[in-house]
Amino acid sequence: VRAGGIASMMRLPVQSDTTGLDACFVGVPLDIGTSNRSGTRYGPRQIRCESALLRKVNSATGASPYDCMQVADIGDVNLNLYNLPKACEDIRRRFSDIVKDGCIPLALGGDHTMSYPILQAIKEKHGAVGLVHIDAHSDTHDLMLGEKIAHGTPFRRAMEEGCLVGNKVIQIGLRGSIYDTGDYDWAREQGFRCIQAHECWHKSLEPLMVEVREMMGNHPVYLSFDIDGLDPCFAPGTGTPEIGGLTSIQGLEIVRGCKGLNVVGGDLVEVSPPYDVQGTTALTGANLLFEMLCILQKVK
Amino acid sequence: VRAGGIASMMRLPVQSDTTGLDACFVGVPLDIGTSNRSGTRYGPRQIRCESALLRKVNSATGASPYDCMQVADIGDVNLNLYNLPKACEDIRRRFSDIVKDGCIPLALGGDHTMSYPILQAIKEKHGAVGLVHIDAHSDTHDLMLGEKIAHGTPFRRAMEEGCLVGNKVIQIGLRGSIYDTGDYDWAREQGFRCIQAHECWHKSLEPLMVEVREMMGNHPVYLSFDIDGLDPCFAPGTGTPEIGGLTSIQGLEIVRGCKGLNVVGGDLVEVSPPYDVQGTTALTGANLLFEMLCILQKVK
Amino acid sequence: VRAGGIASMMRLPVQSDTTGLDACFVGVPLDIGTSNRSGTRYGPRQIRCESALLRKVNSATGASPYDCMQVADIGDVNLNLYNLPKACEDIRRRFSDIVKDGCIPLALGGDHTMSYPILQAIKEKHGAVGLVHIDAHSDTHDLMLGEKIAHGTPFRRAMEEGCLVGNKVIQIGLRGSIYDTGDYDWAREQGFRCIQAHECWHKSLEPLMVEVREMMGNHPVYLSFDIDGLDPCFAPGTGTPEIGGLTSIQGLEIVRGCKGLNVVGGDLVEVSPPYDVQGTTALTGANLLFEMLCILQKVK
Amino acid sequence: VRAGGIASMMRLPVQSDTTGLDACFVGVPLDIGTSNRSGTRYGPRQIRCESALLRKVNSATGASPYDCMQVADIGDVNLNLYNLPKACEDIRRRFSDIVKDGCIPLALGGDHTMSYPILQAIKEKHGAVGLVHIDAHSDTHDLMLGEKIAHGTPFRRAMEEGCLVGNKVIQIGLRGSIYDTGDYDWAREQGFRCIQAHECWHKSLEPLMVEVREMMGNHPVYLSFDIDGLDPCFAPGTGTPEIGGLTSIQGLEIVRGCKGLNVVGGDLVEVSPPYDVQGTTALTGANLLFEMLCILQKVK
Amino acid sequence: VRAGGIASMMRLPVQSDTTGLDACFVGVPLDIGTSNRSGTRYGPRQIRCESALLRKVNSATGASPYDCMQVADIGDVNLNLYNLPKACEDIRRRFSDIVKDGCIPLALGGDHTMSYPILQAIKEKHGAVGLVHIDAHSDTHDLMLGEKIAHGTPFRRAMEEGCLVGNKVIQIGLRGSIYDTGDYDWAREQGFRCIQAHECWHKSLEPLMVEVREMMGNHPVYLSFDIDGLDPCFAPGTGTPEIGGLTSIQGLEIVRGCKGLNVVGGDLVEVSPPYDVQGTTALTGANLLFEMLCILQKVK
Amino acid sequence: VRAGGIASMMRLPVQSDTTGLDACFVGVPLDIGTSNRSGTRYGPRQIRCESALLRKVNSATGASPYDCMQVADIGDVNLNLYNLPKACEDIRRRFSDIVKDGCIPLALGGDHTMSYPILQAIKEKHGAVGLVHIDAHSDTHDLMLGEKIAHGTPFRRAMEEGCLVGNKVIQIGLRGSIYDTGDYDWAREQGFRCIQAHECWHKSLEPLMVEVREMMGNHPVYLSFDIDGLDPCFAPGTGTPEIGGLTSIQGLEIVRGCKGLNVVGGDLVEVSPPYDVQGTTALTGANLLFEMLCILQKVK
Ligand SMILES: [Mn+2]
Ligand SMILES: [Mn+2]
Ligand SMILES: [Mn+2]
Ligand SMILES: [Mn+2]
Ligand SMILES: [Mn+2]
Ligand SMILES: [Mn+2]
Ligand SMILES: [Mn+2]
Ligand SMILES: [Mn+2]
Ligand SMILES: [Mn+2]
Ligand SMILES: [Mn+2]
Ligand SMILES: [Mn+2]
Ligand SMILES: [Mn+2]
Repeated sequence: VRAGGIASMMRLPVQSDTTGLDACFVGVPLDIGTSNRSGTRYGPRQIRCESALLRKVNSATGASPYDCMQVADIGDVNLNLYNLPKACEDIRRRFSDIVKDGCIPLALGGDHTMSYPILQAIKEKHGAVGLVHIDAHSDTHDLMLGEKIAHGTPFRRAMEEGCLVGNKVIQIGLRGSIYDTGDYDWAREQGFRCIQAHECWHKSLEPLMVEVREMMGNHPVYLSFDIDGLDPCFAPGTGTPEIGGLTSIQGLEIVRGCKGLNVVGGDLVEVSPPYDVQGTTALTGANLLFEMLCILQKVK
Repeated sequence: VRAGGIASMMRLPVQSDTTGLDACFVGVPLDIGTSNRSGTRYGPRQIRCESALLRKVNSATGASPYDCMQVADIGDVNLNLYNLPKACEDIRRRFSDIVKDGCIPLALGGDHTMSYPILQAIKEKHGAVGLVHIDAHSDTHDLMLGEKIAHGTPFRRAMEEGCLVGNKVIQIGLRGSIYDTGDYDWAREQGFRCIQAHECWHKSLEPLMVEVREMMGNHPVYLSFDIDGLDPCFAPGTGTPEIGGLTSIQGLEIVRGCKGLNVVGGDLVEVSPPYDVQGTTALTGANLLFEMLCILQKVK
Repeated sequence: VRAGGIASMMRLPVQSDTTGLDACFVGVPLDIGTSNRSGTRYGPRQIRCESALLRKVNSATGASPYDCMQVADIGDVNLNLYNLPKACEDIRRRFSDIVKDGCIPLALGGDHTMSYPILQAIKEKHGAVGLVHIDAHSDTHDLMLGEKIAHGTPFRRAMEEGCLVGNKVIQIGLRGSIYDTGDYDWAREQGFRCIQAHECWHKSLEPLMVEVREMMGNHPVYLSFDIDGLDPCFAPGTGTPEIGGLTSIQGLEIVRGCKGLNVVGGDLVEVSPPYDVQGTTALTGANLLFEMLCILQKVK
Repeated sequence: VRAGGIASMMRLPVQSDTTGLDACFVGVPLDIGTSNRSGTRYGPRQIRCESALLRKVNSATGASPYDCMQVADIGDVNLNLYNLPKACEDIRRRFSDIVKDGCIPLALGGDHTMSYPILQAIKEKHGAVGLVHIDAHSDTHDLMLGEKIAHGTPFRRAMEEGCLVGNKVIQIGLRGSIYDTGDYDWAREQGFRCIQAHECWHKSLEPLMVEVREMMGNHPVYLSFDIDGLDPCFAPGTGTPEIGGLTSIQGLEIVRGCKGLNVVGGDLVEVSPPYDVQGTTALTGANLLFEMLCILQKVK
Repeated sequence: VRAGGIASMMRLPVQSDTTGLDACFVGVPLDIGTSNRSGTRYGPRQIRCESALLRKVNSATGASPYDCMQVADIGDVNLNLYNLPKACEDIRRRFSDIVKDGCIPLALGGDHTMSYPILQAIKEKHGAVGLVHIDAHSDTHDLMLGEKIAHGTPFRRAMEEGCLVGNKVIQIGLRGSIYDTGDYDWAREQGFRCIQAHECWHKSLEPLMVEVREMMGNHPVYLSFDIDGLDPCFAPGTGTPEIGGLTSIQGLEIVRGCKGLNVVGGDLVEVSPPYDVQGTTALTGANLLFEMLCILQKVK
Repeated sequence: VRAGGIASMMRLPVQSDTTGLDACFVGVPLDIGTSNRSGTRYGPRQIRCESALLRKVNSATGASPYDCMQVADIGDVNLNLYNLPKACEDIRRRFSDIVKDGCIPLALGGDHTMSYPILQAIKEKHGAVGLVHIDAHSDTHDLMLGEKIAHGTPFRRAMEEGCLVGNKVIQIGLRGSIYDTGDYDWAREQGFRCIQAHECWHKSLEPLMVEVREMMGNHPVYLSFDIDGLDPCFAPGTGTPEIGGLTSIQGLEIVRGCKGLNVVGGDLVEVSPPYDVQGTTALTGANLLFEMLCILQKVK
């Protein structure tokens, strides 16, 4: 029965090591990097619970990932919840281990801070990568409350440390009120392409994804999906909701549009279950992670 | 006062028999056919509660159904909640009685299993009918957990028993993960037209409904609206939500686009109140049932 | 910290008088004018709480209102909650005081009845004004349950008392079931332009706003945004939700499209926190009020 | 099925007149007399919905009320929701009609203002009555926001108008913060017995009810149960919750302890469904109303 | 981190077979035996999620079960959700397998129907057993809606089939409205001791448990805890809540009072997550299951 | 109106400095010290919102604190949400400032970590103090996840630094599962009196408070009330709920029982609004803070 059984991601087998896996799901129960509402530490658990609905085949694309790849749920990173830099180090170390033999991690977040140590680990294996970043926020601040590490700074840190190729970074869905008129300047100076949400209104994002595929070519790409990139009507359960966002249809178009890219890892972050009263945010997260699985290169 | 009074459907009179009625609302408090989340047994009650908001005239189409027809709320089918085949038989018997003198039933669900016995009853009166079926799921499985009767099989059963005209069946909104790449094959083999949700994205469904009206002509048509055909942002309160669905605007376009068809019955199913925290699913269901009333042939 | 501090509107300073202010936020904790669900008396408090997320600059338009204007939160109108006409008089008196020296009030509602006494106060200062009215309902009934004052009558009363210029009134988003086929007739007879929701489906409202700007010219304009103008998926927390409504994107287009108008006041009404389980309605209200601030004439 | 059918009170027959009835349930969908949170206008509807769980016989007392009396649900008072004095007059008139031939009304509230016009109607039939009043609040203020009629004043008004016998009034459960140290003085001056909640802590109220039965003798008694008399853990869904209240066990002891009294009417008020997220307040209200039915004199 | 990791019961290892286990937790995701609200199919999952809070040692009793026994979470019974008799057979077969080598099952429910097939399996191993049954309902009906198997009949069926020793059965917490004055007669005729809830009010149940230990002696005992035995303020998330119930303190006293008994199995049933908005019902269930573990004979 | 106005604590004036104040309310929006569920950063805001219900006089004790003292809401500590030791330092510094001229701080939490820096500040002014600590947890761990500072360690740290007089510390309400049988050993070795919850079951705590008053004499005492000391039925909105806890009546008895002590500060911590669906936890917190105000020595 669908309602039964241990709630592993998509009811996959649970195993702790990644030997022999083509891809894995891994949780990052982190929320001490959040600036507004917390609660994302329970994101991985809730995404797993909602993922029980998911079946094996993608009805829209025909992808059948489990026929093409070995995939498992490898549980959560065991991290220090009282010290953010240590938590980042815990994450980096675990992901280094995951990626070293070629297993592709798809991470269940957790707050967006986690993308920074994940990208550090990705860099060790793949060098600087391209980035498809869906988010209401640029997350390229230098400091938040005076700190270098927080969920508003991961891509600044990652860029500074050579984890990203500046002109292979695209940010989609930026919007809302900001601290300063120059908030996106630094990103643009690095060569990031910043697509504001209102540029996406009332239209399909398939044409944009054609451009993204051209931009990335065969370069290794990381896919970071902050669920707040979507409009709050689709994803109310998040810490920093901003109105006027992407539709979940556009979210699907973006992930499906990554088919053909050399995706080496991905994450779905900022699901905050205590604010996800109707469960739709976690459900959406689970679906988007399934879609990420479906576009990996080994999937026919 | 709108907040007051017994919560009958749209505050209509409650009566048990259908003598003299052109149309009626009838509840089917069923949920033991559900595969995932249950709770739809309370769908009829919640739809009635939310329907208290509804007034008499359709502001968009000008339809004023109560000026043209006798309509009542005839209560709920008294069904066996511990035995699904018996419950189906209870439903079939009640609907046979409703339709025999020409009263058009609009059913408040209840899980989608119910459409099978309703179609059996409809067939007794009208023979094989056309079907406009809005749903995320094809509901044409042969078996679920080894059983012939469940909410994923009603249209398979109905087709097998000659209740449907295969090439007068259209399914709109199919999507999500499926069990097998061939999940829609059987339906297409019967001549069903299967419209996947992504074929509907970013556009009006009015052109599609022109085609539907051509497909159906004057043939008797049944309208089965699984609320999960809509996106979870509009209808979170359902048992098997799938992202990337129809908008409620498209839902309205579909029902309004049925104006001119010879609609002999309809249902609005899969509203699950315990998951409908903000009440919008039941409210949407109540509105769609009002729209169904507005397109019946006796309404000018 | 964003989570901390007294929840004033957008964390602005709180002060009781309006001396020296270019604009102010003011709450109207009223719900005894509602016909269906109540609860809007807590709208101002909840909008303030959710507004804590808002930062200083509008990322889409570049507007930076606090650099151009003196703005404060002046608290709530102290009104009689047991007697609606007296409450209206309390509101009128307070707004007379606010507007007399040129401070532009942006009101946090509160049920829509409040727009009537606000428009009375606006008239004292500016004479008859134009009106951009977003709503699912025309709110131009003559009587509700036999009473002249209620949330379904404010614009009838305001027009009768010479507060509005009939051919400079536009109502956007009308829809749902109505009491009578002629429900919009009176409004149209006054010269109001009534845009039904289905006229807005599937498209940008920027072209409409070009027309609105032409219609209004330099005339003083009041902006009244009933949150139920938006679809319930964006604004479930309201008393009279109607499906098939405007998107929050269209809501943003309308408010941003008012840039250039001579806006002399505005309100955001009908947020009902007890029905706003996920907080998105109040959040949307807070954002729309920020957008109103951003289009005031003093903002560059 | 229990989940099915029109939600009348305890699934009783619905009828509009009281001819031949020994007792009736009647709703009063009022909330414009509330001082804090509103929402009680939906109390009657929600109490009816939750009452569907109730069966016929009281397992603790053995009472089987439907075997001894004719009882029906007579729907709700049709009242003016925009004008509190008029609403009171609507209530008074309806209850006059109910009681005139001896039918005992058990009212589903609705805010506590309603007890005032009900007591007016009771007086017409029975003269001044005794009162068992369970409440966190004395509801004997002279004025609220300057008004004579509101949910904090009904027993002051009723006493002034000769509806109550002062030394046959008992108030149980008073507590919380108050406006003034003398808040209970007026009540005590009238001879009311005021039992503060802390006098009830950690003990059975059966001994108190022995005293109540002595106090009342055979005099006609009205029973007014404000659900906020109970602790918020039992009745969170109310507008003015106060901690440290009665347990629902004590509530049952009070109502059951009225067995033997000449109860001529009763009400259960202040259930506010939008704040009753888990439905337990309405469920408790439904049960207490059933208990009231069970202690009427005609029940053996 | 507590928030992280796969949500197995109390974060125990998950394994499918019971070899070498002294006790195990096993879920029964069943709800098609419910008469009122459904949703208990998700009970096991939610209890597991909430159990993540639990640590190793019982602070009140000093019990440290994992130091004394091998315990695991063996997942859920794979049962037929569309056919209740088949589901019972699935349960019986799985529990036969669990108990055959002496592993003590502690079951996470699931509706109360499940106790019937579990007791069948227990009988195969241990013969007729004693029963400590906490519940608001006697669950000894002969038929529900004409069916032999449902959540109101398990102990009738179990008694009829010789699974129980009549004078070693105690039912604690019975209350609420019932169908007939003789509803408890059959149980008493079998020798069951029926303790009504009001007999438990205002007191410790430790004295009662002394009697229970005398009644049971060394006989094998099954412990069946219907969470609706507790008052709805402690356990709102259940399908048939009845006010005036046991406190969770009394629940703890009952389970702790079973220390010394020869407990051969137990269940905690009727947790319905969709109605458990604040999660406290599942949390209480998880705690009571931990307490059951702590009183097993192997625990010092 | 009660629903209106800026939500300061108990609608007190807001001011940033403490000059001339006898007591003040101050918020500590902290949650990065939590081990289980987070969300307490919003505790202060929610407590303020719910406190709007509170009136001026304590009906049970007659205390009228505002007639005897100058009290204000001084807003929240501005703290570093990404670094727990720095946040503690921010708290310590602010409280040093508050207490230095004799103003008594009553703190709105916020996770329990905050009591450590508050006690540091208290010590600067008053030396080592007595402590009345209500909690399900002893909070005297040495380390959590290897860290010295977290919400499970404040009283260990405070004791180590000489902020507490060991034999003037009482912990009331300890319960639940613990990590190790010796979890309370360290506390008892310091002379702390540890009262487990089950020692409090079924009785008034007034006799205990007599002992507490003897234990404390005239020594300065700090009062730390972790809302999870109460049973989850009263306080579900907290991060580490444990069943079988104190009643809110016992909570009131404890605080009222502190009347006569030389209370130099207090806090009410661990209110987590995202888990406080019905608002009762924050409401209870607000009431307990009012009760703390009422027992300060300057209150007659
Ligand atoms: Mn982000
Ligand atoms: Mn973001
Ligand atoms: Mn379906
Ligand atoms: Mn479906
Ligand atoms: Mn309006
Ligand atoms: Mn409206
Ligand atoms: Mn009252
Ligand atoms: Mn009251
Ligand atoms: Mn049971
Ligand atoms: Mn039961
Ligand atoms: Mn603590
Ligand atoms: Mn604690």
